[in-house]
Amino acid sequence: MARVVVDVMLKPEILDPQGKAVHGALPRLGVSGVVDVRQGKRFELEVDELSDERLAQIHDIAEKLLSNPVIEDYRVHVEEQA
Amino acid sequence: MARVVVDVMLKPEILDPQGKAVHGALPRLGVSGVVDVRQGKRFELEVDELSDERLAQIHDIAEKLLSNPVIEDYRVHVEEQA
Repeated sequence: MARVVVDVMLKPEILDPQGKAVHGALPRLGVSGVVDVRQGKRFELEVDELSDERLAQIHDIAEKLLSNPVIEDYRVHVEEQA
Repeated sequence: MARVVVDVMLKPEILDPQGKAVHGALPRLGVSGVVDVRQGKRFELEVDELSDERLAQIHDIAEKLLSNPVIEDYRVHVEEQA
């Protein structure tokens, strides 16, 4: 068993109102020094067996199912199990 | 400048309908071998200067603002800049 993580974030040039809302709330909570906040999605896929072919399939669904490539970037990485 | 990442995921015992929906779509896309999918949130905080105090503050907002500790777990890590 392996865990593959797909992180999906809005492209830097796309406005992120959720991130802005979090950023705007920080001073009220007494937190300073945070310059920017971006909010995105994280998918954790538990895979029974890791192979190059399976990783290629996951890249494929990251692009077609999990993200919108017009406005979002994705990153796939394999997470070491604790 | 440093980037601090907060990952927020539903606790394992909490049902995750979004993850289930993604999981259910995989066979239709010809992907097999994925046992489970969980969907969560990823926050990227750009911080002007990293200190122990700032990291403690970020842990604090991760618990109070970014997650719901009743149903979600969070993890804070500092990301190396490329």
